Amino acid sequence: MAEVIDIDDPADPRVDDFRDLSSADRRPDLPGRKGLVIAEGVVVVQRMLDSRFTPSALLGVGKRYEQLAADLAGVAVPYYRASAEVMAEVVGFHLNRGVLAVAPRPRELTLDEVLADARTVAVLEGVNDHENLGSMFRNAAGLGAEAVLFGDRCADPLYRRAVRVSMGHVLRVPFASVPEWPAGLDILRGKGFQIIALTPHPDAANLATAMTGERVALLLGAEGPGLTEEAMRATDVRARIPMSPGTDSLNVATAAAMAFYERVRTS
Amino acid sequence: MAEVIDIDDPADPRVDDFRDLSSADRRPDLPGRKGLVIAEGVVVVQRMLDSRFTPSALLGVGKRYEQLAADLAGVAVPYYRASAEVMAEVVGFHLNRGVLAVAPRPRELTLDEVLADARTVAVLEGVNDHENLGSMFRNAAGLGAEAVLFGDRCADPLYRRAVRVSMGHVLRVPFASVPEWPAGLDILRGKGFQIIALTPHPDAANLATAMTGERVALLLGAEGPGLTEEAMRATDVRARIPMSPGTDSLNVATAAAMAFYERVRTS
Repeated sequence: MAEVIDIDDPADPRVDDFRDLSSADRRPDLPGRKGLVIAEGVVVVQRMLDSRFTPSALLGVGKRYEQLAADLAGVAVPYYRASAEVMAEVVGFHLNRGVLAVAPRPRELTLDEVLADARTVAVLEGVNDHENLGSMFRNAAGLGAEAVLFGDRCADPLYRRAVRVSMGHVLRVPFASVPEWPAGLDILRGKGFQIIALTPHPDAANLATAMTGERVALLLGAEGPGLTEEAMRATDVRARIPMSPGTDSLNVATAAAMAFYERVRTS
Repeated sequence: MAEVIDIDDPADPRVDDFRDLSSADRRPDLPGRKGLVIAEGVVVVQRMLDSRFTPSALLGVGKRYEQLAADLAGVAVPYYRASAEVMAEVVGFHLNRGVLAVAPRPRELTLDEVLADARTVAVLEGVNDHENLGSMFRNAAGLGAEAVLFGDRCADPLYRRAVRVSMGHVLRVPFASVPEWPAGLDILRGKGFQIIALTPHPDAANLATAMTGERVALLLGAEGPGLTEEAMRATDVRARIPMSPGTDSLNVATAAAMAFYERVRTS
């Protein structure tokens, strides 16, 4: 059972892990940072409780405790109960979701672990926008893609904004890094994945007909630059989503959703 | 040919239409507002110049004028050239895109006009988030949906943030209001549109098989509440995107993209 502890003083050291979130958490993964993962709001906190991320503390208003009581019944974790005003002073801004949970980072999953039963995975290169990463995980969760893999130069998926935009799914859809980018794609090939580069290039094959593998890994690059030539060369096929002339490429999370959808559209 | 006029004084009345954008433009469509439409950045300004929105003035740094010179060659419009600092003082914040164009609102298009040659249209109810609206237009443009229609309680698609997120496509993909919501959907039915409600409800038909019309109108509601029961009843079929259990509905613009994609996937 979670233990409720009332916090009246914003300077209370017991809530230090929630302090000054808007500045301190920009890159919590960097050396010297605490590497903490923050969940915001009832739904995302519930998803954290149902994930491999084990919260070490919660900070929230009384009403949110009541909403989470059933989820917290079997969990030994302090719930620091505070007014909205005290919370705002601790975190450094007014937080309208009313509850936060903080968890240390568990060890990273291995490629073998995340690929074990996966049929459809996204592999990202240079996707350094936290909102796009969050949307990517939300779409993967919604449309049944089983994992997200990181090649070169991607942002931290556990950054607070990414966790929030993903609606907590970044805590549940497993992810791992591909070692030796892009050569490490051979590991996926060895496991029977068809490696598909998603590109707006008009010479690419149509996605709907190109995606023939029983297991599929979809390579996606950042909007604008797209995939590097080295990554492209390491794939089995280049596929495009049919686009109207004179428009931009789709947002990277939307393009991924299209491919995930193609895998489940008649299910 | 655009006329270049140097602006050194941020208080210059000639740039009043660009003043205090972050406060003044929240609802430029409301009575008493100027009803101005703002384009930000070279690409969006180019799309405005190629749309039915005729800019009355531009404000930008010298470098952006050079980038737009070819687009502005045949256009009689003042280009107020200013330093980044003067621009920031006028608009009220630092604008890293370096150029703005302002246009009055043209008359609204009629339903007949926007539906003339349309095969695939989105019809929105209660979509009041400017980012979602912008993404909706971007996805419509990219995936070849020909129009966006507004039922009840939607936000202004010409709000600055919506224009920006749409990458200017809100200026090019035609839109119109459906009169007498939802009874006005009969106008679409009369034109041969199959009216499809998109819903996550598990009893709904699969989107891929339900969408059989030569002309298709896709009804979408806001995330969370979804479509009203009245709107649902006015449709021909309820269709769902196959989703994983225990997840949320997709973002409304992403759900629309999935349906637009279904219409063009093998093209």
